[in-house]
Parts: sequence; C-alpha cells; structure tokens
Amino acid sequence: MYSKVDRFDVFTIVVNILLSTLGGILVNRLIPMLSKSFIKANLFGYDLNKRNKEEKKIPEAQGVLSGGVFLIAMFLMIAIVFSEHLHPGSDFPHNKFLEYLAALLSICCMILLGFADDVLDLRWSVKVCLPMIASLPLLLVYFVNYGSTTIILPKPVRPIIGAQWNLGILYYIYMGMVAVFCTNAINIFAGVNGIEIGQSIIIAASILVFNFIELQGSCSEEHLFSLYFMITFIGVSIPILIKNWYPSQIFVGDTLCYFAGMTFAVVGIIGHFSKTMMLFFLPQIFNFILSIPQLFKFIPCPRHRLPRLDPSANVLRPSRVDFRKNELKPLGLFMLKFFSIIKMIQYEETINQDTKEIMISSTNFTIINTALCWCGPLHEEKLTKLLMGVQVCSCFVF
Amino acid sequence: MYSKVDRFDVFTIVVNILLSTLGGILVNRLIPMLSKSFIKANLFGYDLNKRNKEEKKIPEAQGVLSGGVFLIAMFLMIAIVFSEHLHPGSDFPHNKFLEYLAALLSICCMILLGFADDVLDLRWSVKVCLPMIASLPLLLVYFVNYGSTTIILPKPVRPIIGAQWNLGILYYIYMGMVAVFCTNAINIFAGVNGIEIGQSIIIAASILVFNFIELQGSCSEEHLFSLYFMITFIGVSIPILIKNWYPSQIFVGDTLCYFAGMTFAVVGIIGHFSKTMMLFFLPQIFNFILSIPQLFKFIPCPRHRLPRLDPSANVLRPSRVDFRKNELKPLGLFMLKFFSIIKMIQYEETINQDTKEIMISSTNFTIINTALCWCGPLHEEKLTKLLMGVQVCSCFVF
Repeated sequence: MYSKVDRFDVFTIVVNILLSTLGGILVNRLIPMLSKSFIKANLFGYDLNKRNKEEKKIPEAQGVLSGGVFLIAMFLMIAIVFSEHLHPGSDFPHNKFLEYLAALLSICCMILLGFADDVLDLRWSVKVCLPMIASLPLLLVYFVNYGSTTIILPKPVRPIIGAQWNLGILYYIYMGMVAVFCTNAINIFAGVNGIEIGQSIIIAASILVFNFIELQGSCSEEHLFSLYFMITFIGVSIPILIKNWYPSQIFVGDTLCYFAGMTFAVVGIIGHFSKTMMLFFLPQIFNFILSIPQLFKFIPCPRHRLPRLDPSANVLRPSRVDFRKNELKPLGLFMLKFFSIIKMIQYEETINQDTKEIMISSTNFTIINTALCWCGPLHEEKLTKLLMGVQVCSCFVF
Repeated sequence: MYSKVDRFDVFTIVVNILLSTLGGILVNRLIPMLSKSFIKANLFGYDLNKRNKEEKKIPEAQGVLSGGVFLIAMFLMIAIVFSEHLHPGSDFPHNKFLEYLAALLSICCMILLGFADDVLDLRWSVKVCLPMIASLPLLLVYFVNYGSTTIILPKPVRPIIGAQWNLGILYYIYMGMVAVFCTNAINIFAGVNGIEIGQSIIIAASILVFNFIELQGSCSEEHLFSLYFMITFIGVSIPILIKNWYPSQIFVGDTLCYFAGMTFAVVGIIGHFSKTMMLFFLPQIFNFILSIPQLFKFIPCPRHRLPRLDPSANVLRPSRVDFRKNELKPLGLFMLKFFSIIKMIQYEETINQDTKEIMISSTNFTIINTALCWCGPLHEEKLTKLLMGVQVCSCFVF
C-alpha cells in the first residue's frame, strides 16, 4: 500500500508508538508524583464551575509535564530516525535533520514561554510577539530547504488573478502568523474541563489521519515527519486528557495550549500543509472571529469569559457582561447587533432607574457561550462532549 | 591580523556586540518590571547572610530573564550570520546551521529545566539525567559533522600508551558528562551574593579571549561560533551581575546556573575545546572534588552549606555540620581526615557529656568555607571579590 514508505519507516513508526506509550505512562506517573510540588509552588487554581469550588486546590500548568516528556521522546526519536544514515559513507540528510531541530527548538521555546506565562502571568503583547520570534529558526529552515513562496490559487479565480502568486516575504509573515494563531487560538477556546486538551488531541488525530493518507503522495517524507510529532504528541497528551476530563483533577495551563499550538504550527509549516491544517482549526477560527469584539476591546471584556454554574441544577449557563450602552463606540454597537442577528450572542437592554442610562447585558463572545445559547443550560461534561463533537465533525468533513 | 576572518565576520561581530548591548539593556529593564510578578508567583527568597534578613523578599530565578533574552538575541543572530548565504545559488552551510540549532535547543532545554527546578524543586536524579538528554541532539550533530572520537595524548605518555586513542562511544559519554558537569558545577559553587553570575562571566570572558586568540588558527569557524554565544551571554548577564552583587536585589536561581553551564558546554563541544575549557573550570572542579564527601553522603550534608553571618561583626564565618563520630563509615572518616590534613576543612571532636558519644563539628566541604578557614572571617563582598580573583587567576594562567 505505502509505495514510498520503506521497511525502515515502518520500523520507526512502531518504535515511535512504543516510545509514545512509554512517554504517556511516564506522564501518568509524574502527575500524581509532582502535584504537591505544583501546589506548593503556588501553581494551582480552583475549579470555578463546581459547587464546592473553594474546597479543592487543583494543580495548574500540568502541560509542562507532557511538554517535557514530549521533548525527551522526540530527542530519542531523532537518534532512531537518523540511525540508518549514521554508518560511514552514508549520505546524511542534513535538510531533514535541520527541520527536526528547528521544529523542536520552536516547540521548546513555546513550552518555556507557556510555563513562564503560567508562573508569572505575562502580558498579551508578549504572548503575541514571542511565538513569532520562536518560529524564526523554523522560517529560516523553510527558506533554506524549500524557499518556494509561490501559492497555487483555486481554479475559479485563476482567469481573473492568475494561476499562482509568488508571495515572497508575505509568505513568511503568513507562516509567522500561523505560529501566533495556533498558539493563541487554543488558549482562547478554553474554560470548561477537558476542552483545551480535548480539541488538541482531536486536531492531532486529524492531522495524523491526513498524514497517513498522504504517505502515498509525493511529499511522503514531510508527512512522515509530521507523523512522528503527532504520534508522540497524542501519546503524552492522553494521560493529561484523562485527568483533565470532568471533574478535573488537574488544569493544563497555558503551557499546554502553547505547546500544542506550536507543535501543530511546525508540522503544518514544515509539512507544507499549513493551509489544509487551518481546516482542522475551524472551530478555533470561528471562536477567534467571534472573540474579536472583546479581545480588541470594542465591547468590554471581563477577566473570565467561561460559562457560569447554576448550582441549583448543576448546569452551566452562558456568562454575561454588563455595561452602559453609551460606553460602546459605533463599531462596537454594530458588532453587538451583527452577532446578535446571526444568533451568536444574546443581549438585553434595560434602563437603570437611578441614572436613566440604558444598560446592556450580553452573553460573552465565545462559542462555548454560543453553544449554551443554542442548546439551553447543559451539564459541564455534556457541554465538553458537545464541543468535542463539533470539533470532530468539522475535522472529518475535510 | 585575522587572516581567516573576512569582512563579513567582522560585521557580524559588530552586530553581535550591538545586539548583546540591546539585550543587556532589555534585561536591565525587565528585572524591575517583573520583580513583583516573581514575588507574587512565590519565586522569592530571603538573603540568609543579611542582618535583617526577614525584612526583604528578594525575587528568585532571574536567570530566566537573561536566558529568554539570550535566545531571542541568538535567533536574530542566526538570521544575520547566515544572511550571506541566503541569496539564490549560494552554497548554504547546512553543517554550521545544524550546530547553531542544536546548541540553542540544548540551551533552551536547560533554561526550561532550570526554571522548572526553581519553581518545583526537582530531585537530584532529574538534574543529573536531563542535561545528558538535552545534549543528545548536540552529540548527534557532532557525530554527523565531525565524527572524530580520536584524542591526541600528551607527549610524555606517548611511548607507553601510544600517540592517540580512538575513544569511540566513550568520547560521546565524555561529552554528555561535560554537559552534566558544567550545568551542575556552577550550581554547587554558590551561596554568597554575586558568585554564580560572577564566575560565569569570568569563564565566558576567558573563553572569549581564547576564541579571539584562536581565530587565526585552523579552527577559526568553530571559534567564531563560540564567540557569538559568549558575546551574547556576557551582554545579557552583566545587568544580572550588577543587581546580584552585594547587597543582592535579585537572586539568579538554578536557571542561570544551568543556562550558563549548558552554554559553556555547547561551545566547548562544538568548538572542539572541551578539554581546554575544563581548565577554565578549575575552581569548579576543585569545589566539586571537595564536595564529593557531602554530595554522596559519606559525610552528613545539611540543606544549606553557605557560610553563616556573624551579625555582631557583619562578617561571614564558615558554616559547620555536626554529627556523631559513629555515624561515619570508614571511608567517610578517611575523607574527613584527608581533607583536614590538606587544610581544606577544620573539624573538632568533643564528647557529649550525657551520651558519652564522640561528636564531630566540621566546616562544610566547599571552597567558599575553605577560603574562610584560610583567610579568617570576611565581609561578604570581600569574600566574593576574593573568590572571583581566584577564578580570574586560574583562568588567565592558561
């Protein structure tokens, strides 16, 4: 079946699966071993959507464990993948090796940044700029190994604007933006137990299936490269998913979001399927577009936008943000109305009896809240399952 | 003068110095900006050797700032160093690029490990194993680019055991050990204000001078490589030295020790001067040998071995460890007597009037305490200056 894949590749995939399983077992053991250290280091949170939320300290930033084990497993994998070229006289594939190192360097930087963010609470500007700098070595490797910045345009538009465009430097800026987008998109699609890690594993599994299908194609090497990263990622993430599933015993922290996002970005960039990969990110793209009014302060943005618990029924309802109507600029008002018309949010106007000002109470602009607007109040676990279902559907349509 | 160094190399060195200066300025601004975040994140300590030590919370783990800025500066440097090969048709030096990426990957891993250690207080076994794994990509690059594991033996022994030995796999184990040694040696030669960062900068400056001298030689490319790392390292470290100098406003944390140690290890390995580099580590080697009895528990080891303050005179005296003589195994007793005879430690025996057991009170086994045994009680700043003087002398003799 896999004409381009030789026996050695099958061997490395088997070793990779074994190593990832071992990695998963290691993460699974590390979580309980280190949870006290995390809590002692002030790295814990309370689960806001539980009835007796103040009772239990839940260790945060556990993504650093899966990230660390991922790096160790990938270091060992490098040695195995390149072992067939290590005998004297072999023509060593420097290009491939460069890609591995640059990919791991970018991922390692993002794990460091994510962990620093969990510990120190960094600013937004840092979170946006640093992924771009972290992807610099990767872009340089792309330039050296491929250098092609030409994109093939879809057939319908070819008669009008040509069959292909050479984007030049713009293509590198685009790739840098992919890194920034992937790392932050997962981070803002969060708030209920298991959702960050759940979506990451579904995206990884989709990429994995896509890679397997493409192994027969002309870019089999790139897809093999991506395969190793995805198998290892899934291996070290499954224990995190289990413990982060409702009711959460751990929180994944920004570390996991950045780690997962950068891992997807590097395989997309090096594997030349960053545009296809965006299709796996549809819920995230959708959530990002929906979040724009609040992220860019056209509409007031509270500290937390996660749904809030209705303790009597133990279900989640959309969280709301309240503000005076005259706080909004015309663009903000337009966005409020637009997203309300397309049913993404619900808002009500009331008049404050004291000040006679018009007050607006709107649901927050995230698809988690939209899902609750559409389906009515839901139990937290059901909500996560629903959102994961949406992610699975949107991934496998493509 | 520099026959092998062309104008482009001079240009990159100038750019490097500028970038490092900017990096230093950035670190200098980040320290006060983020100190509250560090203290809020429980990353602070009290300076045990100050009179009113409980009064002031001093932010810890500041090495992560210099490490982070170091990575950013080096990413930008890569783009500049390789810019002359980026035009079409140029023969891109994949080997060199591999070295940069592997070096930065190892360093980034160690910054992550160091920061995790500062936050989570990891175990000794982790600290010893992980540097070895982090150096794996580097060793693979060494294998691919050079592969030579032959060492030239010194002249006097050649008639007996031959002029050169091919160490094979042993040479890789040796290089892995260099990484483990460098990262931990700086970490255990610590305890008074400014000493970790002071020794690191002196070692870096020594390597820098050595590189400059060797630029004329046959390995000029390797020394140029090392030069970029050392210039950047010194640039981002100077603000840390200034603020960590007596009386400390910040602590550097394990992050800095690991970051510095791994930076030295990678330039030593890639630059083929790991054996020469060991000469710059003489005080650390000495301190390590002296610490063996306590590190390996032949003699009881207290949590802290730093000298203790005599508040009345505001001077430091050697710290002591007290234990029963019959706790020691014969080897421990031998080590105690041996190091006492060569005047590295001082100990006294007393008899406990109640239990009639022989009690031993010994100074701790570090060269900081040895220095205090030899020179008598010293003010903390004077002690640091003295130890830095020793480091400078031992580096510049070679």
